[in-house]
Amino acid sequence: MEEVLNDLKQWLCIPSVSSNPEAAGEVRRAAEFTRHLFEKAGLESVRLIEGEGHPLIYGEWLHAPGKPTLLCYGHYDVQPAEPLELWRTPPFEPTQLGDNLYARGAADDKGLAIILIRAVQQFLRAGKPLPINVRFLFEGEEESGGDHVSDYLREHASELHCDAALICDTEMFAPELPTICVGLRGIVYAELHVTTGEVDLHSGVYGGGVPNAIEAAARIISSLKGKDGNFLIPGFDDDVIPPTAEEEESWSALPFDMEAYRQEEAKVISLHGEPGFGLFQQLWARPTIEIHGIGGGFTGEGSKTVIPCSAVVKLSCRLAPGQDPDRIAKLLSDTVAAQALEGTKTSLKILGKAAASVVDPANPFVREAAEAMAEVFGQKTVFTRSGGSIPIVGLFKDVLGVPSVMTGFGLPDDNLHAPNEKVYLPNVYRGIEAIARYFERLGEK
Amino acid sequence: MEEVLNDLKQWLCIPSVSSNPEAAGEVRRAAEFTRHLFEKAGLESVRLIEGEGHPLIYGEWLHAPGKPTLLCYGHYDVQPAEPLELWRTPPFEPTQLGDNLYARGAADDKGLAIILIRAVQQFLRAGKPLPINVRFLFEGEEESGGDHVSDYLREHASELHCDAALICDTEMFAPELPTICVGLRGIVYAELHVTTGEVDLHSGVYGGGVPNAIEAAARIISSLKGKDGNFLIPGFDDDVIPPTAEEEESWSALPFDMEAYRQEEAKVISLHGEPGFGLFQQLWARPTIEIHGIGGGFTGEGSKTVIPCSAVVKLSCRLAPGQDPDRIAKLLSDTVAAQALEGTKTSLKILGKAAASVVDPANPFVREAAEAMAEVFGQKTVFTRSGGSIPIVGLFKDVLGVPSVMTGFGLPDDNLHAPNEKVYLPNVYRGIEAIARYFERLGEK
Repeated sequence: MEEVLNDLKQWLCIPSVSSNPEAAGEVRRAAEFTRHLFEKAGLESVRLIEGEGHPLIYGEWLHAPGKPTLLCYGHYDVQPAEPLELWRTPPFEPTQLGDNLYARGAADDKGLAIILIRAVQQFLRAGKPLPINVRFLFEGEEESGGDHVSDYLREHASELHCDAALICDTEMFAPELPTICVGLRGIVYAELHVTTGEVDLHSGVYGGGVPNAIEAAARIISSLKGKDGNFLIPGFDDDVIPPTAEEEESWSALPFDMEAYRQEEAKVISLHGEPGFGLFQQLWARPTIEIHGIGGGFTGEGSKTVIPCSAVVKLSCRLAPGQDPDRIAKLLSDTVAAQALEGTKTSLKILGKAAASVVDPANPFVREAAEAMAEVFGQKTVFTRSGGSIPIVGLFKDVLGVPSVMTGFGLPDDNLHAPNEKVYLPNVYRGIEAIARYFERLGEK
Repeated sequence: MEEVLNDLKQWLCIPSVSSNPEAAGEVRRAAEFTRHLFEKAGLESVRLIEGEGHPLIYGEWLHAPGKPTLLCYGHYDVQPAEPLELWRTPPFEPTQLGDNLYARGAADDKGLAIILIRAVQQFLRAGKPLPINVRFLFEGEEESGGDHVSDYLREHASELHCDAALICDTEMFAPELPTICVGLRGIVYAELHVTTGEVDLHSGVYGGGVPNAIEAAARIISSLKGKDGNFLIPGFDDDVIPPTAEEEESWSALPFDMEAYRQEEAKVISLHGEPGFGLFQQLWARPTIEIHGIGGGFTGEGSKTVIPCSAVVKLSCRLAPGQDPDRIAKLLSDTVAAQALEGTKTSLKILGKAAASVVDPANPFVREAAEAMAEVFGQKTVFTRSGGSIPIVGLFKDVLGVPSVMTGFGLPDDNLHAPNEKVYLPNVYRGIEAIARYFERLGEK
């Protein structure tokens, strides 16, 4: 356990912020350290895979003929640490307080990815063979949306034969409650530009006679959803495949305090979602339309009387299972065009898209993981979904044709992407045990 | 002429952005330079008047007993230059291209205010007495809605005896067409803050279950006006006093090419205004509701999936004669409160307000100015209104009991408050001549 902690601390000391071009050297240092961890664990054919962007790290152990092969995925890059002033301990000096280890990347994903590496090491370093075959593929662009891993997967699919993928990048629904994530939403992310003319105009001189780009943008935004949270785009949710009655029922059995969630986790004045659906449905199984940002005209100190000629809006739809990203992009585009005020030019640029993905909880790879986790944590494993998008899961399915097993050992208060990120260390140790047990169970079949 | 140009360039080099607290030193430099210009012109008792906010500059010449006294008003502060990337020449490095001089403040107001100073200088520096008495009062908070000048006027009204105010801060209706402005709209300027929670949230994790501050702001904006340009605030235009049939008729005689105006001046895709009113009515005699700026969430490069917890909107209403600023502020505030989505906290802060004002074209001070301008420009002077607001005009009327003569030497394409602001230099020179002739005509009576 001390060795795990030391390895993890050394890894976390490296500020591998992949979205920052100036940190490229640190990202490479983290890649080299990942290679070192793979080698120490006893993986073979360990190597850095170079390409456009930050390197991938590959390793394998394939000496269990007739047994299944798992593709273990993780990422060694991290989110930027800003705003630094909100951290209580330095983000790149891992600090242990009680059972928690604080650092950027502690939970996302170094502190969870190390579970996979150490589970392998438990066997090979003790001189025991692994009960199954494994391939490891870690990337360094998960937080920056780089294409290296997807390009590589597409080009080398035939060399990456496996039966399932295993990902440690999600969280437990509640402390002590072993959790497997069996659904992710998809996404269509777009940038909308609205223009009404060539220059900003004086609102005294022209006010009353010309269109206003911000007003036009606001009108488009207001046309997407009703004030009750219902969708106004015709046909938007037609193709949504709802969860089974059984799955929905299992959600209602999850331990959950709505008011504590509102106040302590979401920290909002009130929850607000699509009418007619429960919160887990809204978050996990229904699509969304969210505005991420808007800019236009003057928002500085004081009063400037300008009629803005342009505005920009960032928005996205989270997609439920069944929704086709291309169709949603088209619907969005049509709605924007239809709602544009007279005298308004609009352009909608799609910045990214991915379909939702669901995994059948009855899939044997999922079932065995659930059993292994239940053994170690002493509680029945629950199946949840995540409202977020992990694009690699879609790739594993589409390119390699395999399901992803998403075992969560993070906790809801780990502060992912936020100041004071941490990992609960007992979960790291129990996670290693659970994954090792998972390997054994798969090997016994 | 070279001296005028040099003085003006030096003045324009000073970035006296009164709304920016960090530019306070520059605003003071501009005040000192104004004092220098007053002194050089031969004005007496020149001094900076300190108080809350940026200084006023006072000067006088009162040696024409029995002749009328004009209060000459101008402002030495300017609008912010942002967005800087749209300027073809640096905003605070005055650049002459042909007959135009480009700089922030070139037309609003330094390049026009200098006409008043130089008209005085033409007499006094040549050793000739002025034909009338003048007081000069320039301020540095016109663009930021500061209270210094109004406080001073109210407290020192008895020391500022005059018969009329003279203001060079408006524009000619068309090049070569001498123009006096006899009506101004009022204004209510406000800043709206919308909050839904304490922190921005991840749109994957929380999307679908929580409110979105930008969506809430957009909904408020969309509730102010219909998509045809009609006002939706109940009672908003109840008190508007329409122009006389005679005034409206004179507007229809103005030389005007609607399509050229759209394309070359407003540079908009199409004109868009309140249904049922002609363009001059819309611009000069009807109220407006305009959004000046909006900000919230993420608008940088790429995709960030954040649900913003706050948004800010700058907006204003231009007021037609008859509309009470306090009543409009109240209506605006009531509408915002009524339209706020569930789970949204709103706060509307009024940053400035002023009523509309109209001047009788038959007033002798207006008539003589019209004659003087007609002499110099060789065309009959036309009377127009401006859609803008010059709050000081209301003060001169209410506090000093005098009408304001608004002589326009700017041009419609001067880009006021916008990038690439400029002044047409021949108008500065002819303006000086016209004002000097105005002084003579008043002195002859």
